[in-house]
Amino acid sequence: MNQSEHAASSKRSDIIVGRNAVMEALKSGRTVDLLYVSQHAGGGSMGKILALAKERRIVVKTVAPQKLDAMSGGVVHQGVAAVISVADYVELEDLLTIASKRGEAAFFIICDEIEDPHNLGAILRTAEAAGAHGVILPKRRSATLTQTVYKTSAGAASVVPVCRVSNLRQAVVALKKAGVWIYAADMDGSPWCGQDYTAPTALIIGSEGRGVNRILREEADQIVSLPMSGQINSLNASVAAGILMYEVARQRQQIVAKN
Amino acid sequence: MNQSEHAASSKRSDIIVGRNAVMEALKSGRTVDLLYVSQHAGGGSMGKILALAKERRIVVKTVAPQKLDAMSGGVVHQGVAAVISVADYVELEDLLTIASKRGEAAFFIICDEIEDPHNLGAILRTAEAAGAHGVILPKRRSATLTQTVYKTSAGAASVVPVCRVSNLRQAVVALKKAGVWIYAADMDGSPWCGQDYTAPTALIIGSEGRGVNRILREEADQIVSLPMSGQINSLNASVAAGILMYEVARQRQQIVAKN
Repeated sequence: MNQSEHAASSKRSDIIVGRNAVMEALKSGRTVDLLYVSQHAGGGSMGKILALAKERRIVVKTVAPQKLDAMSGGVVHQGVAAVISVADYVELEDLLTIASKRGEAAFFIICDEIEDPHNLGAILRTAEAAGAHGVILPKRRSATLTQTVYKTSAGAASVVPVCRVSNLRQAVVALKKAGVWIYAADMDGSPWCGQDYTAPTALIIGSEGRGVNRILREEADQIVSLPMSGQINSLNASVAAGILMYEVARQRQQIVAKN
Repeated sequence: MNQSEHAASSKRSDIIVGRNAVMEALKSGRTVDLLYVSQHAGGGSMGKILALAKERRIVVKTVAPQKLDAMSGGVVHQGVAAVISVADYVELEDLLTIASKRGEAAFFIICDEIEDPHNLGAILRTAEAAGAHGVILPKRRSATLTQTVYKTSAGAASVVPVCRVSNLRQAVVALKKAGVWIYAADMDGSPWCGQDYTAPTALIIGSEGRGVNRILREEADQIVSLPMSGQINSLNASVAAGILMYEVARQRQQIVAKN
């Protein structure tokens, strides 16, 4: 899928509830981020819905019926709800193609379990501005392209190519094979500004609480840190991501050509 | 006031309602950010409250009684509410003293009408981490050091010295007289990274919607911009502030000494 198709995709995110509506969404090929299924739901068309979800590799979360009640805001949900994405996702290979088509060294952001939609939205917004070619999210334990993310991103969520992968480690390994340097933003690394980011680059941004997962830290070519003075010693994830992204942009010519 | 006193000040922000309680707060010397007064309130001790507020130069906002009802959550407010700060404010001269005592070139952030408490909180958090000596806010049309700001700042709101001024332009003029270079972050300026920030520096950060006020733009020594690729062409105010602050930090030795 090319980027203009990506940008043209639906800008609405919705929670669709009820078996028929969810079934239709699954059949229509709309991008479903997640399926919520009630603990006690079953029988009838439920088997068919779950089979379709499995076929389309959609993550299914089992939740208490009360959670579905709250989501559906009074509408009869029959034990199932689907979260529809504001944009279609692209494949990892597409991201590499976008960079090479533009004749630029690849520049990707890997969000390692960023679950706060405001942080994901702000990261997408900055990624778009800093000239990144795409953002990579895991299918599980991550915010998805919901309406909140779309709004916080000021619309960037439907413009920046986003790739969802089942396994972040495998994605990192694939990127390394494609010649991309992997920088994990975490504690106890080298200062962020001492690296050369002009080669193909992917930045791994961890969640505020946990940082970058150990497995990804180990796969990274380099750990980079933002040194901090003062007492608090932590930055908002989207602010830290922004600082790193603009250091990449600073080192690459096109964005500061006016300088 | 020195910084440790600053850090030791109360960490609770509250809305205090009712005439007696507000009067006590005003007399006690607690830092009151703002007084809300009902449109139709008057008589009794109200005159005395308003006189005290005037004496202490506290901004008074007249609001509809319904707004006070909503703030006070059912408690009888008698037409008045006071917003208490999570920390004491310092004077502009204190900020300059802090920098010189540390033997460092001054580094200040001027928030030009940042009304979103989440943005102000994130800016305070980054300012603390980037080694800024203080943050300057206007008394009107700005978020104050409320509990929401405190939380978003991860506690930095009670650690970073914050100065509130009646007139931002006058503050900028005073800083310039003290040898501080003023950089306004706004559209159509020079690239952010082409400046030398090792001299005493103040960054003016504008609100997301309006940018930096014209009067402050004119007072600034330099307009600096974050060039943006892509279609959206805007950054979250706290992300933009973070990128600029860490460019200052990058250029100054102490924070990247490990490099």
